[in-house]
Amino acid sequence: MSEPVVLINSFEVAAADAAPFITAWEEARDYLRAQPGYIDTALHQSLAPDAEFQFVNVAHWRSVEDFTAATRSPGFRAVAAGLAGYRSHPALYRPART
Amino acid sequence: MSEPVVLINSFEVAAADAAPFITAWEEARDYLRAQPGYIDTALHQSLAPDAEFQFVNVAHWRSVEDFTAATRSPGFRAVAAGLAGYRSHPALYRPART
Repeated sequence: MSEPVVLINSFEVAAADAAPFITAWEEARDYLRAQPGYIDTALHQSLAPDAEFQFVNVAHWRSVEDFTAATRSPGFRAVAAGLAGYRSHPALYRPART
Repeated sequence: MSEPVVLINSFEVAAADAAPFITAWEEARDYLRAQPGYIDTALHQSLAPDAEFQFVNVAHWRSVEDFTAATRSPGFRAVAAGLAGYRSHPALYRPART
């Protein structure tokens, strides 16, 4: 039943906000990687400072249930507040083709 | 000088178009993976059929130059025509944090 999932989250961040964004992202990552079901994560930064999505996070979780529990926890809401100012486009994915 | 890069391309695809989209994506993949500098690729499909981006492709290339040469080639333009009907958001990234 329970299959690994991939969170892909694209963030709209102005070039001038890259450093504070990364700091806020690291806080959220530090919380999430201690949660059950976390596998790994990778934050990507665009080569072009004016890209539509300057940052894209690709994270692997053991199951939808684990991801949902982690991101609905009160602890996550606290650390995620630092990212609330950046428009994001998160969704859960499955590997489809290679 | 030349560092590996990550292409992340988010596609807006209606749920009903998933199968033809995958067929078209596979054609482009088949062409690109024979080009110099191609490392790997992974097409992700969203769990929710109404996600903003139903598909996200994450591909690794040896360098910007290799990726640019591959995608500017006449052969690529021919196979990429099948994807032209889907709005996409491609950009090149570097790994920033894990």
